[in-house]
Amino acid sequence: MRSRFQQGLDELKEKLLRMGGLAEQAIDRATEAYRTRDSKYCQMVLAGESAINDAEREIDELSLDLLAMQQPMAVDLRFILAVLKINADLERVGDQAVNIAQRVLDLISEPEVQLPVDIPRMADSVSTMVQRALEAFLDGKAEVAEAVLQMDGIVDRMKDEAFIVLVQKMQNEPAVTRPALNVLLISRNLERIADHATNIAEDVIFWVRGADVRHGGAHYRQ
Amino acid sequence: MRSRFQQGLDELKEKLLRMGGLAEQAIDRATEAYRTRDSKYCQMVLAGESAINDAEREIDELSLDLLAMQQPMAVDLRFILAVLKINADLERVGDQAVNIAQRVLDLISEPEVQLPVDIPRMADSVSTMVQRALEAFLDGKAEVAEAVLQMDGIVDRMKDEAFIVLVQKMQNEPAVTRPALNVLLISRNLERIADHATNIAEDVIFWVRGADVRHGGAHYRQ
Repeated sequence: MRSRFQQGLDELKEKLLRMGGLAEQAIDRATEAYRTRDSKYCQMVLAGESAINDAEREIDELSLDLLAMQQPMAVDLRFILAVLKINADLERVGDQAVNIAQRVLDLISEPEVQLPVDIPRMADSVSTMVQRALEAFLDGKAEVAEAVLQMDGIVDRMKDEAFIVLVQKMQNEPAVTRPALNVLLISRNLERIADHATNIAEDVIFWVRGADVRHGGAHYRQ
Repeated sequence: MRSRFQQGLDELKEKLLRMGGLAEQAIDRATEAYRTRDSKYCQMVLAGESAINDAEREIDELSLDLLAMQQPMAVDLRFILAVLKINADLERVGDQAVNIAQRVLDLISEPEVQLPVDIPRMADSVSTMVQRALEAFLDGKAEVAEAVLQMDGIVDRMKDEAFIVLVQKMQNEPAVTRPALNVLLISRNLERIADHATNIAEDVIFWVRGADVRHGGAHYRQ
């Protein structure tokens, strides 16, 4: 039979995965809002923010309770710390989805213009990163987490390309400055979600390997 | 005589304050870079990033060691969790300072243009927020932390104003699109530093009061 502490760890994992589901949903809805220019999806993202915030608080409290319950073994301790960090990143993913939804509301308040940036494709890469990072967490697989780290560079390049083409567009057609700027900011929000997915992947590796792979270091402890 | 655990907590506090000093220095240097258009300050910010990253890792490891050392009392547990969260926020303050330095490098690669946004004033408010948040942490003063929360709205408004005037400027003078965009992004980086200062202030209150004041809730536990 599993101890109360072990049951608590299972519950913590389940809660974090549910939180991850909310964050993914927020990204998908924000992307759908952009694609369809339908404010309904923006409203869904905005309305969903408080559920994400509540989930973050619950997870923090359960982690605290578990740490207070007994002196955890090193591997459990690392797991709880990873959960705390992933939790904070997921909440910020939710914030970024809200920012995107607000930009989309501004975008659709004006007539549609064609801009040379493929936001849905970028969103797709970013969404995949978040999914994979959560999958790595679910299965405790460092290899899957490492694949997420590889993808970050691709999203970074997409963001840099978006910057260049949109600045050019604004210079040549000042009338589209505002929508172009909204799209530029959306590309930056997406890139920040990719950063959070990267953080999550690093935390999974930290938990699984007892290593700290952040900032390019590889300080394996075992 | 203080126990090894208590000494560890003191060391943790000291390390976090030193990390805070590095983050503040990065903001000040990035602001100085903007003010003087001297790339030397940008280089200092870029070169300082790895020291901040190292400090973050050290603090995480010490926290982990302390949690593993004994079953901490509730107040110590809250303190260590607050340190872990503040640590992550300070590292991200450093990242934002790097982003600002990169924008300034782009800005000074072109002739100076006058833009109707007072970045140094905004940076001043933001820097004060970070200072106060760290002061609140040093002294364990929830009132000081609460004053930081009040300041966040002011910085938010500055960012929104910057957006409006800079979009207008870009529309009227397409030739200044690129520098105007750089300044707009700097204003957003500053606003994000203010968000991190707000997070830090909330973590101090969480530690001191055992309350969770995030997301507007006031779920006092005692």
